[in-house]
Amino acid sequence: MGNLYIALVHYPCRDRHDKIVTTMITPIDITDIARSACTYDVAQFFVVTPLSSQQVIAQKLIDFWLKAEPDVAYRRPALHRVRVVDRLETSFQSVLEREGVAPLLVGTDARELPGPRISYEKLRELIETDDRPVYLLFGTGWGLALEVLDRVDYLLPPIWGPTEYNHLSVRAAVAIILDRLRGRRS
Amino acid sequence: MGNLYIALVHYPCRDRHDKIVTTMITPIDITDIARSACTYDVAQFFVVTPLSSQQVIAQKLIDFWLKAEPDVAYRRPALHRVRVVDRLETSFQSVLEREGVAPLLVGTDARELPGPRISYEKLRELIETDDRPVYLLFGTGWGLALEVLDRVDYLLPPIWGPTEYNHLSVRAAVAIILDRLRGRRS
Repeated sequence: MGNLYIALVHYPCRDRHDKIVTTMITPIDITDIARSACTYDVAQFFVVTPLSSQQVIAQKLIDFWLKAEPDVAYRRPALHRVRVVDRLETSFQSVLEREGVAPLLVGTDARELPGPRISYEKLRELIETDDRPVYLLFGTGWGLALEVLDRVDYLLPPIWGPTEYNHLSVRAAVAIILDRLRGRRS
Repeated sequence: MGNLYIALVHYPCRDRHDKIVTTMITPIDITDIARSACTYDVAQFFVVTPLSSQQVIAQKLIDFWLKAEPDVAYRRPALHRVRVVDRLETSFQSVLEREGVAPLLVGTDARELPGPRISYEKLRELIETDDRPVYLLFGTGWGLALEVLDRVDYLLPPIWGPTEYNHLSVRAAVAIILDRLRGRRS
């Protein structure tokens, strides 16, 4: 069983015109995804933003919940897993140092993209049977920049229900993907 | 294939001391869950609150997105599925009138509760093979009041990952449950 890492990437992302942008921190992304990460035993959840003012906001939010009232103490173990970093490279280095081996890098996107695909079932099996850590990347805005997706080892297919609508929030997409990869099956 | 309905219930819910309370509308619940509902072809998403001031807030939010800029028009079909009602009974009546038959009522809770259980696989199969509509109830605060859970036909088990932590946001829980019941499998 390899450790699982996730990143919520605010740069480099695409906007609706396919331009490369830095997106803003959305506070509820951090708390929701931290809670999902804790549920599915994600070793570390990286929040990636190059803007120091945004890093300050994210860190303030994390510190708030880490010191929160006992009534909402259930949030502490979740927020403990979050780390704010300036860029993806910093998070790769951090995983590499912790694990002693480069993680398998897996990209996600709401669009059907060309590239090396891996199914949810196959990745689930790989996490269960292989010791190599897996690092899942999630974009914000209109998705990860192609320069990031070009670097991944695998791409997970988009999430579909019975319809052709696939405009899930990133909070919902992360929850669903973690459940597909690590949900307890009875 | 029966139609699927969901409700986000703000009354009657439990607080952390197991007292019955009315919880406040959380705007992001409505947009996130509407987007998940649209992805997984939920026929109607009921937001249940007895407080008229809260109904006004919820409806304003829905109307805002229904009239939103073309750039975020992808939210319209999602928000079209949301209906604000004063109490659960009103939503039951609405489903009954639309379907001509009472829906199978299914409760959810983060705790392991006694009662008539149904597995995700079994309910998925039932939705696919049976014409009877299914109505899933989600609580807010610390969960649905027992007087609601006592009325359901079935209870879905709590969502678990590999850990003992189960403090998902309701937004994440709805997304995961809809994916387990209606996610496209390839």
